[in-house]
Amino acid sequence: MAEQGCLIAFEGIEGAGKSTQLRLAAAALRTRGVTLVETREPGGTTIGAELRRIVMQLSDPPPAPLTELLLYLADRAQHLAEVITPAIARGAVVLTDRFSASTIAYQGFARQLDIDTVSRLDAIVRGGVAPACTILLDCPVAVGLQRAQGDDRFHREQLEFHERVRRAFLSLAEADTDRYCILDSTAPTEQIHQQVMAAILRCLQSR
Amino acid sequence: MAEQGCLIAFEGIEGAGKSTQLRLAAAALRTRGVTLVETREPGGTTIGAELRRIVMQLSDPPPAPLTELLLYLADRAQHLAEVITPAIARGAVVLTDRFSASTIAYQGFARQLDIDTVSRLDAIVRGGVAPACTILLDCPVAVGLQRAQGDDRFHREQLEFHERVRRAFLSLAEADTDRYCILDSTAPTEQIHQQVMAAILRCLQSR
Repeated sequence: MAEQGCLIAFEGIEGAGKSTQLRLAAAALRTRGVTLVETREPGGTTIGAELRRIVMQLSDPPPAPLTELLLYLADRAQHLAEVITPAIARGAVVLTDRFSASTIAYQGFARQLDIDTVSRLDAIVRGGVAPACTILLDCPVAVGLQRAQGDDRFHREQLEFHERVRRAFLSLAEADTDRYCILDSTAPTEQIHQQVMAAILRCLQSR
Repeated sequence: MAEQGCLIAFEGIEGAGKSTQLRLAAAALRTRGVTLVETREPGGTTIGAELRRIVMQLSDPPPAPLTELLLYLADRAQHLAEVITPAIARGAVVLTDRFSASTIAYQGFARQLDIDTVSRLDAIVRGGVAPACTILLDCPVAVGLQRAQGDDRFHREQLEFHERVRRAFLSLAEADTDRYCILDSTAPTEQIHQQVMAAILRCLQSR
């Protein structure tokens, strides 16, 4: 079906259901014979796993906002070099749990770094690679945080931080409706899955 | 003597004598009553120490050149936020073993990333902080590598890599003679120390 590889990103706040929906989509696509890579940011490589620990766990003192941004970008650079770019080159569909939109939402809007600087740095790191489709799983912050597992620096942030992240994701998606698909992730899991699959198949068929 | 703080960088290839000369200069400046911070890159902070290990030791697979650059920049961002900027603000003279010139020489010239991109990223991270004076300890690569301790990814690079680094340092210094002091580090340690002190005192007095 997919004659050339592409990247599909799953985005959303903590607890929005990204991992669950990515796993369901991966299983359904494999059933259809699609060559697939499931991955995530941060932590999709050996170096990335080390960076994930540093950026999400070290808190005494925590990374400065600019340090945090550069660590996520280092993770992305390695993820692209080792995983994403080779997979796309050999024709695979790459499903990633988080990509550039998370950087812009968390490090740009929520940490309040200059958005234009964040976007320019991200563009340098991506070097032209971009998701063919981004699935934004949207839900109220209270719903996401109740579902979210984990006890990292981000889970411990104030509600207002997560509200800024949610608003940022929505504004990114609304500004680029051709490449984003916004889904209400408070709906039943199977219903969301059908919507995710419809969006992914539409994206793959349009290539 | 130094009424406001400033940053002084020691640069050079592996084994050029940076750490030795920095330590001697620090002791001499303390004797003169200068408030001093001795630090280094990478690894001048807790997070930086973790990044130092990742960038210098992990080699299976190694960081991609862009990942390596971003890790050094993340180290610098944290080093500035935690150590350098607060020290300068309270009037200290900060002596650092490596700073931006190393990034441009190693990640730009030697790894052959685009120099303009490396410089622009470094400038974003520095946010206006720059060494008042950079001491470049220059010696032939063969001399440096013979003296250098350690068995990290950089020590294991080919001679040609280190030659590119040396040439890059020299060309950076020759393009900015007001702020660089090039010293022949094959001279006797005490003689170099006197030259380092002359350069530093000249720099501090001119402020």
